[in-house]
Amino acid sequence: MIASTAGAQAPVRVATPKLDAYVAGREFDKPTLVIDCDRVEEQYTALKAGLGHADIHYAVKANPAKPVLERLVQLGSHFDAASRGEIEMCIAAGAHPDTISYGNTIKRAADVAWAHGAGITLFAADAEEELDKIAEHAPGANVYIRLIVETSEADWPLTRKFGCDAGLALVLLDYAKEVGLVPVGFSFHVGSQTRRAEMWAPTLDQMAEIWKAAKDAGHDLTLLNIGGGFPAFYGEAIDTPTVYASRVIALVEEKFGHIPRIMAEPGRGMVAEAGVIACEVMLVSRKSDRDVHRWVYLSIGRFSGLAETEGEAIRYQFETDRDGDATGPCIMAGPSCDSADVLYEKRPMNLPLTLKAGDRVLIRNTGAYTSTYSSVCFNGFPPLDVVVI
Amino acid sequence: MIASTAGAQAPVRVATPKLDAYVAGREFDKPTLVIDCDRVEEQYTALKAGLGHADIHYAVKANPAKPVLERLVQLGSHFDAASRGEIEMCIAAGAHPDTISYGNTIKRAADVAWAHGAGITLFAADAEEELDKIAEHAPGANVYIRLIVETSEADWPLTRKFGCDAGLALVLLDYAKEVGLVPVGFSFHVGSQTRRAEMWAPTLDQMAEIWKAAKDAGHDLTLLNIGGGFPAFYGEAIDTPTVYASRVIALVEEKFGHIPRIMAEPGRGMVAEAGVIACEVMLVSRKSDRDVHRWVYLSIGRFSGLAETEGEAIRYQFETDRDGDATGPCIMAGPSCDSADVLYEKRPMNLPLTLKAGDRVLIRNTGAYTSTYSSVCFNGFPPLDVVVI
Repeated sequence: MIASTAGAQAPVRVATPKLDAYVAGREFDKPTLVIDCDRVEEQYTALKAGLGHADIHYAVKANPAKPVLERLVQLGSHFDAASRGEIEMCIAAGAHPDTISYGNTIKRAADVAWAHGAGITLFAADAEEELDKIAEHAPGANVYIRLIVETSEADWPLTRKFGCDAGLALVLLDYAKEVGLVPVGFSFHVGSQTRRAEMWAPTLDQMAEIWKAAKDAGHDLTLLNIGGGFPAFYGEAIDTPTVYASRVIALVEEKFGHIPRIMAEPGRGMVAEAGVIACEVMLVSRKSDRDVHRWVYLSIGRFSGLAETEGEAIRYQFETDRDGDATGPCIMAGPSCDSADVLYEKRPMNLPLTLKAGDRVLIRNTGAYTSTYSSVCFNGFPPLDVVVI
Repeated sequence: MIASTAGAQAPVRVATPKLDAYVAGREFDKPTLVIDCDRVEEQYTALKAGLGHADIHYAVKANPAKPVLERLVQLGSHFDAASRGEIEMCIAAGAHPDTISYGNTIKRAADVAWAHGAGITLFAADAEEELDKIAEHAPGANVYIRLIVETSEADWPLTRKFGCDAGLALVLLDYAKEVGLVPVGFSFHVGSQTRRAEMWAPTLDQMAEIWKAAKDAGHDLTLLNIGGGFPAFYGEAIDTPTVYASRVIALVEEKFGHIPRIMAEPGRGMVAEAGVIACEVMLVSRKSDRDVHRWVYLSIGRFSGLAETEGEAIRYQFETDRDGDATGPCIMAGPSCDSADVLYEKRPMNLPLTLKAGDRVLIRNTGAYTSTYSSVCFNGFPPLDVVVI
């Protein structure tokens, strides 16, 4: 089931009957992420329907569980890898090297050489030193130049960490040729969790201007990598994947005209809604008799899977067996002795007043950016367990 | 070698000849934390010399490497554990259950029962529900009540996540008795990396007032757990461990009078200076021709061991083979595709202008809060490797 079939109207929550049935019948001894592979397939199909001739390069970092990668290989997905490790995972899942782009602009020279040997032919770069590395260790490779996005309306906007500005981008296209590489185009990223397709417009305007400048300078660009940003449902209205993707592609065509090859890199938008975390309440308390807010401590926190609550950026949806009881505001925190392990404090969550230690809590739409962010053994707690059904 | 033998004068850096010799002769294929166990022993001995009759309960969360725990067991250290996992590690390293406190105020009922069965007799709590859990699953146990610290001058001050206020603390002492537990005292935490002993004074004043109120209410308190806060050298002047610890104990005695049992929980102050991380430069770049700052990307970042750079709180010291060359300001970032994986941006670091991809970087005094914070497989990068020498 997809979030909604009627455009931008958001339902109370995404229906996930298979996940619901699985968690309902089971005890979990530690926090566990359950992923429904069929739900990933539905999402892939829905995104592909909207993206048309654009290639989907699944952002492996969102969730590299082997059954997820295998299913996506079967469906014909391509892949965006952040590291040698992720390329290895894709190949182990059956992906052809031709379908994998090495999209991190920060690569170790030895890993570039390894990737070249493994048959990877498409690399990202945003600096001269990176092009030198690729030229030396993957001679003749295709490269695209990552551009900085100056405007973002995303819930998790990106910093200036990646990309270069327009002036430098044109210099780098020339430089890539000089060192024997094939500069095929540009990439950018509108910011993770860009909730509405319309929010892409200012970024696309900025990017199209650079694209045109490069064409005017004589560069034969054939590839535009529009990155990710495809949203998941966290309680605020989002378009359905098909509607969203088709609007984005329509905007791209409106701003750029025809482009031979478009790449899109959904990660969150592909897998978030396919996952649910089952955890439990560790403690409910107040700090003093005068406290208005309760503190609710869960068995999972920022260092064991919920890293994206940093700055309270991503607001997950919580379900308990006591939903329906009267609710009150709660500060939510993880189980560790780290005082930074607080999930929501500035904007407390409403949870049932009857909630108590031992109660099960389901955290919805947590299939993306949870399992691999989990620390190895923080405070002696095990990493997030993952089950794929 | 200890940071300095002359009180508060900070040296340029802590001398670690054994670590220096080890890393100088080796290639590291991935970011690696090297820990010198002898350096841990020196620090234990120096802290113990200052702490006098207080018991050191090493905060296992700072670094639970087995050889470190084994060495501390040999030296007579006690332990502060945050979880069942950490208690198991201590016992596996040879610690007697009597020497282990279960210091997390957030515990799973099943873990309390397990700890009770394993012989743990001392538990922390800051809420009625937690006391209920302990009373049911560890009947008759000793408990101390964690207090909120309202004032902190630490570099990594704690939030309101742990502890309760004075009024509730007295209620909880009574409640503990009611449910058959033995309330032995209080704990608090001044905040991690409290650089000078004098910074403890306002907190100790606040705590001593509550201690006195409890005594006046008829509670026979015998234990004060002064927590951690013992600093490591990150470039700013700190006292030597012995001077620092003896000043803290003198302040405690001045404010509280005689206390039968004092517990101190150094973590960072025990192991940080015993560790060095060897990593490498992945890329040096500028975002545009007009950029004043370079971006320096390392092979380690916030999600692979340097979690404490969040908010740029802990400022590590970096060494390269090009130290001595002219320097310029750098924004520093990790190797992942996550835009939040930036180490220092608001306050850039000065690094050699000659720095380039492939250069080795040593990050000093990184023995605490690095290895276990490292994520399992973020962006396909392996967790921080640990070698104990």
